[in-house]
Amino acid sequence: MYKLAIDAMSGDLGSEIVVKACLSFIQSHLDVELYVTGKKEELKSLENVNNIHIVDAQDIVGMNDGIMSVRRKKESSMVKAVIMANDGQVDGVVSCGSTGAFYTSAMLFLKRIEGVEKSCLMAVLPTYNNKGVCMLDVGANAENTAEQLNDFAIMGNIYAKNIRHVSKPKVALLNIGTEEKKGNEVHQHTYQLLSQNENIHFVGNIEGREILLGDVDVIVTDGFSGNIALKTCEGTASLVMKMIKESMLSSTRGKLGALLAKPSLYSLKDKFDYKSVGGALMMGFTKAVVKAHGASDEIAFENAMDLAYQMVKQDVVSQMKEGLEIK
Amino acid sequence: MYKLAIDAMSGDLGSEIVVKACLSFIQSHLDVELYVTGKKEELKSLENVNNIHIVDAQDIVGMNDGIMSVRRKKESSMVKAVIMANDGQVDGVVSCGSTGAFYTSAMLFLKRIEGVEKSCLMAVLPTYNNKGVCMLDVGANAENTAEQLNDFAIMGNIYAKNIRHVSKPKVALLNIGTEEKKGNEVHQHTYQLLSQNENIHFVGNIEGREILLGDVDVIVTDGFSGNIALKTCEGTASLVMKMIKESMLSSTRGKLGALLAKPSLYSLKDKFDYKSVGGALMMGFTKAVVKAHGASDEIAFENAMDLAYQMVKQDVVSQMKEGLEIK
Repeated sequence: MYKLAIDAMSGDLGSEIVVKACLSFIQSHLDVELYVTGKKEELKSLENVNNIHIVDAQDIVGMNDGIMSVRRKKESSMVKAVIMANDGQVDGVVSCGSTGAFYTSAMLFLKRIEGVEKSCLMAVLPTYNNKGVCMLDVGANAENTAEQLNDFAIMGNIYAKNIRHVSKPKVALLNIGTEEKKGNEVHQHTYQLLSQNENIHFVGNIEGREILLGDVDVIVTDGFSGNIALKTCEGTASLVMKMIKESMLSSTRGKLGALLAKPSLYSLKDKFDYKSVGGALMMGFTKAVVKAHGASDEIAFENAMDLAYQMVKQDVVSQMKEGLEIK
Repeated sequence: MYKLAIDAMSGDLGSEIVVKACLSFIQSHLDVELYVTGKKEELKSLENVNNIHIVDAQDIVGMNDGIMSVRRKKESSMVKAVIMANDGQVDGVVSCGSTGAFYTSAMLFLKRIEGVEKSCLMAVLPTYNNKGVCMLDVGANAENTAEQLNDFAIMGNIYAKNIRHVSKPKVALLNIGTEEKKGNEVHQHTYQLLSQNENIHFVGNIEGREILLGDVDVIVTDGFSGNIALKTCEGTASLVMKMIKESMLSSTRGKLGALLAKPSLYSLKDKFDYKSVGGALMMGFTKAVVKAHGASDEIAFENAMDLAYQMVKQDVVSQMKEGLEIK
């Protein structure tokens, strides 16, 4: 049986959607045991359900708590779930709490894979060609060395292969030009390391304007640039959508057009709703760590649970260990 | 009389649009003399026009020439125009050649303002609130020190005041979070310098998702992050537009909607066409240096000329000298 710890309390919407997601998930995943952390009085409907265990945790890491609050919140549903993973009681953890707090919990209470100097955050972005692209690091680190970026490439590559089923993932380095000598010393050195890395298919540098095309499968970047790029994508996409809506609604003719085009526009809105992509994955830890989005509905949360399940079942962490050893 | 050197040859569309722009510009700007560099045989229609001087230059820096080609192309229209500025024959230069080559020409052949360690590229981006925002550096440097970022803030501030007529420009630092301690040492140190700089109105850090809102007037960033941010904005905006178009055209109902909404959508497309914004400005040099976009039409080129004229007339360079002295 695969074992997952599920933090039921830390999301914006409370425990109810997590409870529903767990009940639905367990029916379609007969090889999984869930350890649901949270206030036991809120988890009554999970009592006596096969393969679900309630782990009482009376404290909560709120969305507005500082990220370092996790240090003293060892009785919280979030930290308890992470510690269970570290103790080997479960193989993976899912939470829809604050990304910062959840990542910090993992940093503090969960071992990293040996040889990984820095863990990082990975986001999967929707792309024009619908393939999606993994980008890492998107903000765990304020700066990185070339060796760390090489580690990120290895982890992203294994993820793309095993979870996204890309047989030979194209790995690119986010940079300010396509030529080998672009960027500062770190980027130039990273370019060398990635070129020499026989375990990945490095296709060179990629610029900001190509991120969402989907021509590559994994984009490697330091946490600073990656965070700027991710948030700029999010901000620009949502602003352009908003402006299109407002622009159309500003004239009668436009309004009628908007009404007719509504189904087309909505389908696109969903595609570019970065929130629906499920938030960030925490890479480099000895267990699968998946962050469901804070405003997740039960379907999104169940998707996040399934992702953790896939990572555990495909044994992605062991493969990363191996990949990082032979680098 | 204000004097501008105009590179007539380096754009994608050849000398014709530049010639037209010069003829139109000179009629509405009676206090300007133009020195137009290029193949004299292509500039015949400028002969004997009041206040226009043809400067024969038989070589061309093509859009696909390497940026270092300018080193040996001293007889090109681009380099000749830049050298005229350095020699004091003109007060400003306008070119619609390759940004990289034009910037390199300025680096090689034009003096920097004393005390400016690094020159940089500034872009003016369209914003949601129509105010626009200046961002610098957008890619001249692969990394920058805090002192250099402080210089960029001073230059951006003076530009926003004098050319964009913002009485008290809000200056922000591009970072991965709003808190003072975000980012690496350079960003943290820059935050301190900007906070202590009494000649600017520093409003703190800004994240990638807020760039296009227009809540601030000047965004200061190192050239690496700035280039990633600019290109990610461009790429995302154009891709979302493209996807909306395709999504609407994929159904009959959507097609009808698109037809009706066309005027609204077109007005927005223009707004977000970064090319129409006129390309990048080169900051930190002793003369006004304006890059018109390579695919400029004559109106865009004339706008770029007017920008150089405004910079010269408002004596922006002198004010930058002063601002950088008292920093």
